[in-house]
Amino acid sequence: MFLHTKRLQYFTPPSKPDPIYAKKLQELIGGSMGEMTVMMQYLFQGWNCRGPAKYRDLLLDTGTEEIGHVEMLATMVAHLLDKAPVEMQEEGAKDPVVGAVMGGTNPRDVIAAAMNPQHEIVSGQGAMPADSVGFPWNGRFIVASGNLLADFRSNLHAESQGLMQAVRLYEMTDDPGVRDHLSFMIARDTMHQNQWLAAIEELQSDGFEETVTPKIAHEYGKKEYAYQFWNNSEGQESAEGRWAKGQSIDGKGQFEYVANPQAVGPIPEPPQPDPKLHATPATPAMQKTSDNGAKNFVDSAVDTVKQITK
Amino acid sequence: MFLHTKRLQYFTPPSKPDPIYAKKLQELIGGSMGEMTVMMQYLFQGWNCRGPAKYRDLLLDTGTEEIGHVEMLATMVAHLLDKAPVEMQEEGAKDPVVGAVMGGTNPRDVIAAAMNPQHEIVSGQGAMPADSVGFPWNGRFIVASGNLLADFRSNLHAESQGLMQAVRLYEMTDDPGVRDHLSFMIARDTMHQNQWLAAIEELQSDGFEETVTPKIAHEYGKKEYAYQFWNNSEGQESAEGRWAKGQSIDGKGQFEYVANPQAVGPIPEPPQPDPKLHATPATPAMQKTSDNGAKNFVDSAVDTVKQITK
Amino acid sequence: MFLHTKRLQYFTPPSKPDPIYAKKLQELIGGSMGEMTVMMQYLFQGWNCRGPAKYRDLLLDTGTEEIGHVEMLATMVAHLLDKAPVEMQEEGAKDPVVGAVMGGTNPRDVIAAAMNPQHEIVSGQGAMPADSVGFPWNGRFIVASGNLLADFRSNLHAESQGLMQAVRLYEMTDDPGVRDHLSFMIARDTMHQNQWLAAIEELQSDGFEETVTPKIAHEYGKKEYAYQFWNNSEGQESAEGRWAKGQSIDGKGQFEYVANPQAVGPIPEPPQPDPKLHATPATPAMQKTSDNGAKNFVDSAVDTVKQITK
Amino acid sequence: MFLHTKRLQYFTPPSKPDPIYAKKLQELIGGSMGEMTVMMQYLFQGWNCRGPAKYRDLLLDTGTEEIGHVEMLATMVAHLLDKAPVEMQEEGAKDPVVGAVMGGTNPRDVIAAAMNPQHEIVSGQGAMPADSVGFPWNGRFIVASGNLLADFRSNLHAESQGLMQAVRLYEMTDDPGVRDHLSFMIARDTMHQNQWLAAIEELQSDGFEETVTPKIAHEYGKKEYAYQFWNNSEGQESAEGRWAKGQSIDGKGQFEYVANPQAVGPIPEPPQPDPKLHATPATPAMQKTSDNGAKNFVDSAVDTVKQITK
Amino acid sequence: MFLHTKRLQYFTPPSKPDPIYAKKLQELIGGSMGEMTVMMQYLFQGWNCRGPAKYRDLLLDTGTEEIGHVEMLATMVAHLLDKAPVEMQEEGAKDPVVGAVMGGTNPRDVIAAAMNPQHEIVSGQGAMPADSVGFPWNGRFIVASGNLLADFRSNLHAESQGLMQAVRLYEMTDDPGVRDHLSFMIARDTMHQNQWLAAIEELQSDGFEETVTPKIAHEYGKKEYAYQFWNNSEGQESAEGRWAKGQSIDGKGQFEYVANPQAVGPIPEPPQPDPKLHATPATPAMQKTSDNGAKNFVDSAVDTVKQITK
Amino acid sequence: MFLHTKRLQYFTPPSKPDPIYAKKLQELIGGSMGEMTVMMQYLFQGWNCRGPAKYRDLLLDTGTEEIGHVEMLATMVAHLLDKAPVEMQEEGAKDPVVGAVMGGTNPRDVIAAAMNPQHEIVSGQGAMPADSVGFPWNGRFIVASGNLLADFRSNLHAESQGLMQAVRLYEMTDDPGVRDHLSFMIARDTMHQNQWLAAIEELQSDGFEETVTPKIAHEYGKKEYAYQFWNNSEGQESAEGRWAKGQSIDGKGQFEYVANPQAVGPIPEPPQPDPKLHATPATPAMQKTSDNGAKNFVDSAVDTVKQITK
Repeated sequence: MFLHTKRLQYFTPPSKPDPIYAKKLQELIGGSMGEMTVMMQYLFQGWNCRGPAKYRDLLLDTGTEEIGHVEMLATMVAHLLDKAPVEMQEEGAKDPVVGAVMGGTNPRDVIAAAMNPQHEIVSGQGAMPADSVGFPWNGRFIVASGNLLADFRSNLHAESQGLMQAVRLYEMTDDPGVRDHLSFMIARDTMHQNQWLAAIEELQSDGFEETVTPKIAHEYGKKEYAYQFWNNSEGQESAEGRWAKGQSIDGKGQFEYVANPQAVGPIPEPPQPDPKLHATPATPAMQKTSDNGAKNFVDSAVDTVKQITK
Repeated sequence: MFLHTKRLQYFTPPSKPDPIYAKKLQELIGGSMGEMTVMMQYLFQGWNCRGPAKYRDLLLDTGTEEIGHVEMLATMVAHLLDKAPVEMQEEGAKDPVVGAVMGGTNPRDVIAAAMNPQHEIVSGQGAMPADSVGFPWNGRFIVASGNLLADFRSNLHAESQGLMQAVRLYEMTDDPGVRDHLSFMIARDTMHQNQWLAAIEELQSDGFEETVTPKIAHEYGKKEYAYQFWNNSEGQESAEGRWAKGQSIDGKGQFEYVANPQAVGPIPEPPQPDPKLHATPATPAMQKTSDNGAKNFVDSAVDTVKQITK
Repeated sequence: MFLHTKRLQYFTPPSKPDPIYAKKLQELIGGSMGEMTVMMQYLFQGWNCRGPAKYRDLLLDTGTEEIGHVEMLATMVAHLLDKAPVEMQEEGAKDPVVGAVMGGTNPRDVIAAAMNPQHEIVSGQGAMPADSVGFPWNGRFIVASGNLLADFRSNLHAESQGLMQAVRLYEMTDDPGVRDHLSFMIARDTMHQNQWLAAIEELQSDGFEETVTPKIAHEYGKKEYAYQFWNNSEGQESAEGRWAKGQSIDGKGQFEYVANPQAVGPIPEPPQPDPKLHATPATPAMQKTSDNGAKNFVDSAVDTVKQITK
Repeated sequence: MFLHTKRLQYFTPPSKPDPIYAKKLQELIGGSMGEMTVMMQYLFQGWNCRGPAKYRDLLLDTGTEEIGHVEMLATMVAHLLDKAPVEMQEEGAKDPVVGAVMGGTNPRDVIAAAMNPQHEIVSGQGAMPADSVGFPWNGRFIVASGNLLADFRSNLHAESQGLMQAVRLYEMTDDPGVRDHLSFMIARDTMHQNQWLAAIEELQSDGFEETVTPKIAHEYGKKEYAYQFWNNSEGQESAEGRWAKGQSIDGKGQFEYVANPQAVGPIPEPPQPDPKLHATPATPAMQKTSDNGAKNFVDSAVDTVKQITK
Repeated sequence: MFLHTKRLQYFTPPSKPDPIYAKKLQELIGGSMGEMTVMMQYLFQGWNCRGPAKYRDLLLDTGTEEIGHVEMLATMVAHLLDKAPVEMQEEGAKDPVVGAVMGGTNPRDVIAAAMNPQHEIVSGQGAMPADSVGFPWNGRFIVASGNLLADFRSNLHAESQGLMQAVRLYEMTDDPGVRDHLSFMIARDTMHQNQWLAAIEELQSDGFEETVTPKIAHEYGKKEYAYQFWNNSEGQESAEGRWAKGQSIDGKGQFEYVANPQAVGPIPEPPQPDPKLHATPATPAMQKTSDNGAKNFVDSAVDTVKQITK
Repeated sequence: MFLHTKRLQYFTPPSKPDPIYAKKLQELIGGSMGEMTVMMQYLFQGWNCRGPAKYRDLLLDTGTEEIGHVEMLATMVAHLLDKAPVEMQEEGAKDPVVGAVMGGTNPRDVIAAAMNPQHEIVSGQGAMPADSVGFPWNGRFIVASGNLLADFRSNLHAESQGLMQAVRLYEMTDDPGVRDHLSFMIARDTMHQNQWLAAIEELQSDGFEETVTPKIAHEYGKKEYAYQFWNNSEGQESAEGRWAKGQSIDGKGQFEYVANPQAVGPIPEPPQPDPKLHATPATPAMQKTSDNGAKNFVDSAVDTVKQITK
């Protein structure tokens, strides 16, 4: 169960509205690497966590914090959308030439044309669960496999991409309020990158996992192909990296560089199509007109078997 | 530019058709963590790579291999869909009671009802760019930020989730052909997990990156919040992990456990809505009927400014 | 079956093209609360209506009208996209300073950059089944449950949101043609809000439904929780409303304000994961390596049963 | 900011696993009318609420409760997926004939074929943010316009459809644990239908809104069309309802039944296409080959204007 | 404007319910090649048609007919979902062994597990705007470019795929009612394939188009590459076709078979990333820490220009 | 298996960056008619091709070429995004008045506001698998039915729409580099239109197919409706075309123009809803409260049958 505290985790209002920046900031709310993704990813991982309580609690504590991050950003977007054109107009007016132009036709076009139109028409100056081009957040953005090593690596990836985007957005504004606000979120993402790295270490020191996850893969995989780098191009620039020579990172093999890889498999011989599906066969003679009787695809297969097994 | 070799990278045909398994195997083709995802992710990362040639080549070599993995799986799906009901029927027929039932109504229902109907109606027994519930692959499944540390972590995450799924599918069949085939793919995924771990090491030893990416985050973030774990729940199981105490993984701080976190921000005071948008304001008196004149939202803002700046 | 009348239900051409407004007007065509939604919602509700003929006819009459509304808006969009830059240019040319700028580089950038690029590249100046950010209409936008009270409430919601958006768009233009055109659509939406309210009354006076739908919910629900308001936050502003005290709207209970709600359920004890799925268990000892044999997940479950039932 | 309580709001475990039912129950988690929808809808409405504090608190209290409902259902799904085939097998084994069949090939096919394959392959027996056919929840499922009357009607619609689905799922199982669990949720949905009806009353008694929202629509709409019902079909069953006669529900007009509606608009005369877009014009003569020069669509429009304005 | 006739264009009820077949038949309603696609494609093409009236009328007449086809199929689905399990049960009961099993546990599992669960939970036994795996129809399924030759080819493609699917579904049932019903739809699709072929001929004989559309492509394209077939694989099976030799179909060139194609372009030299975006550059030395000042990405670009242009 | 050649198939760099054009060019990469669509469509058709080797090779050769087209366009987008604002600024600076304005506030707004924000925030100046409004490419964009005539028609449609878009984009720029680059792609699309037309001829001359596909449709369809044009509107402009009279294109019938079409089917009588689903029936008396017992929908159906069959 969850409880709400009316105070925000952190908040600094913007010094002025900026509807174009509001559009961009949506990426951190509803983008594939935004706060809704980490919120939902950690909550679903936590709800499905069957491992030790400390990991479950870690996931749910962090997921709960992320709900508040969506709240912080939604509040910021509402402020950025407040009477934006007025403020932007004032700034333009200080420069005589620019002001003349902006007092005419132009600022209306620039701002009203380039902002996210749904911020006016649909949400009435509120945030939306969508990204910076208006594409809605969706459930395929999250990952929760039940295997904590795989999932913590997914969390590290999400925090790395997300922090990258937060930093880019930090540098795309010079509003001190927005920067102060993002500064808090950047700190929290810094913690979260550290935290998932720590949790990955802990999982291994607790004896749950090795380098390659899941462990059983080492047993199932064909070992002769498990440490080869295939150079599938002309030129061998890829031979220069750590992945091309020396002991493998999991310590169970030696990296091998295959400079001129050859296909190991055959040329495929696709099975002929069922006549009932009217796909094109190898020759017209094989394209028997399916009979006009009542049998369907599976029934006719059953008939064939009956004849065979007589 | 790309070239095609008619031979498959590796292939072992299934010993018998199995349309239900074909449906499941689609997860490895078009699922969010499937081969289309890694193929497209590595190709787009490679095409946008501005770093050293060895990394660009690494990405494009691996992306090119993954096109062939989609091809291998698509070929496998075509074989699994070939006359499936017949074979399944034969197996049932060996057991007298089961055979009696399966020679009647039942196998048609089970197989024809539970297979992916689009494998018959739409693709004519062919693979589709969709996952195991028929949801189509889409471009939001991939990540390519230009920052190689962030992107290699995304690749490690994709290979960890993908290998997990390949292993689960390996254990969901006892067909020796399918198992042999997956055995090759599991080996390649093992290599790829090793490879991205090696590339992460290399990026750091080459001097491009530190632990937290991007580096500048350390400068922008509020340091007092950058190493705190907030315990946003009753109970303190989350205090038991590596993330709650000791030096941070990036070596730049000390983890701190905040047992009873308090909101730092204010209670939000949302700005009042523009009357033109007919959202509900704080009091009815503030809900002035917008005038019936011709001005739009931005125009009226411009007018306001003009009056102010007179 | 349907018939088409070449005349539009209503139409006033715009006085000048405006491709930016055309982009915004797409919200009323293909947005989640647009005309395609009500058209499809009423038609599917009508086709699935098993209630009295008057309701079925009501749904299909209104759904049929809405096809014509999509047609009206598609025609308007085609006019708004016609040679738009020329007209916009003329207006700018009247003001000497603005004209100088607009005769140079700028208007091309503003208009061509901010319009929906698919209106040029894809549709050749025609309307598209998408919303104001170019996201396509989809079938999950509609609701048709077969329960007419639930569905009429959905219709009332759709007409309320849709009329709100039409009014916002009305105020975002000062083109008399567009305003006259929208004026007709606003009137029809006014009728439709009235109409669904009337149909809700009628359903109840006909004896089909009570306040809460479906009626059986009163029997199935735990009555002790059916009229409580849980105050899941610090502070009690929510105690001030009608929902916190007095008789419930359905007349079957008394609203009760629970100021400090307590969880009624237990701390969850998630079941341990199946070893075959390689999820992380409570302790490493429980993480038995799944055997390398041929059995899949369900087969091994069947084996377990066989042993138990011996 | 949010806090998590480890205890669930309410929970009764299922008496036995049932992976098919787990698939169906996903509708209440990630379906368009499921708990993720109401959770996100109320939170975003609350974060964007600029009206009186009691409404904002109402929205956020209820949205916070709904996060816990997603948690309850996710926990239930994990239990339903636990070792399901074993239990189902045991039940079949009690009936000798069925048991014989089920001990053979069949139950594996039925259960493993018809369950959501992602519950095994992707989530490792955990819940997913998707509906009963595996389609992911997405942000277009929610509505938050800032106008509280429109939004409360949307909330009433969501609770009506959602309660309908919960009741249907209640009747689709006879597991006493699941039924007890749903019984709690049905009660809460009963409260929520009552609550939004109460809030609609309160908004009107507070003086914010009238029957038709937004109020200004009455002023903007063409009054002669605002109370007409158009009978767009042969036959007049639709004349029998409350919507066809008498005073309109908003009290501002009289319903009028238009038995044989006639189009009021003209036959459209679509504008001719820009030659640069190569769409088909009215006659081949109008299909001038666009010149091969460097000008683009907007530039050529600008040139035209320059010639005109010379 | 549109009118509705209460009679269906054609209809034969199924002889018995079949919820599994209802699930499959959804492909013809809401699949990417289903009736909603052709309905919307022809209507949007017609609404945007600026060519001769006969083409516009052709499009709208056919689009209007397709609305009725969706209606026919939606009605069929409602009948197929009616009390389905009862009928299926009766059939099973006639065979003693099957009947014993089906009177036990099994038919519930087969039917209830494999039908589309939303047909019960969401639509209450009604059709939905979705395909056979429950994926919703969406606006990206249609094409309407304004160029009638391109669009008529799209229509021919849609009718070819759609008729293929209708024939497959015809053969997947032996219900005489369903077959009679589909027989009508197959005839209409036969007409529509003929019709679009006729319209393609007519467009060319009317002087609007040549073989390759749009005509101007012949002028813009590099002619030396416009008739070459590139053999991008080992082996030359592709040399055996009409496309590899002889006059091109448009009569403007000679097909040429390039057996060993060589890349004409250079090895790409990607531009170095902007330091503000923190992407990985060619060497660490180029990865200057972006300054901590207030300038954003575009501002700093402007500064650079100012220095250059001093 | 696939191999990569580091050289691009063809490439000319743009003479200057242009981020707005980069946004538009995304349509050719990830739009529904873009290069990712033809790449995936031809590859999946090839992998599923069971016809003669020449067709399979044709498909895979062309699909392989298209991977390289995505690569070419991705490289172009990276160049167009490189330091774009600087160049655009320089151009503006040459005109004194424009320069004054552009040296102020404006160019930042125009360019930074209207470019695709994800090109900065998400991809770090790289291409994305999305279209010109940022909507992601998805697997439902492709068609691969196994019937080669239907599929080659789909390919002709894709190349016709794609070439149209390439020509429109060619005319939307005057950058000689971009034009030269597109000139190559336009030539290849010209070849591909010719090629699929040739392949359609070849399929028929090889004896696989007739005009209407699949052939069996002629046998299954009701012949009396297979050549009628239904004039579903007032007015008879549609009577003037080739489709309204003369021999049908398939040579098997005569086109017939039905000027006043009448519905052939009945008024639908929808089956009454199952009481368990709480949909609204024809009269309240039929709306029996479903019993509160434990039976689900299918179980109660089974009970009914048992009573009937006693």
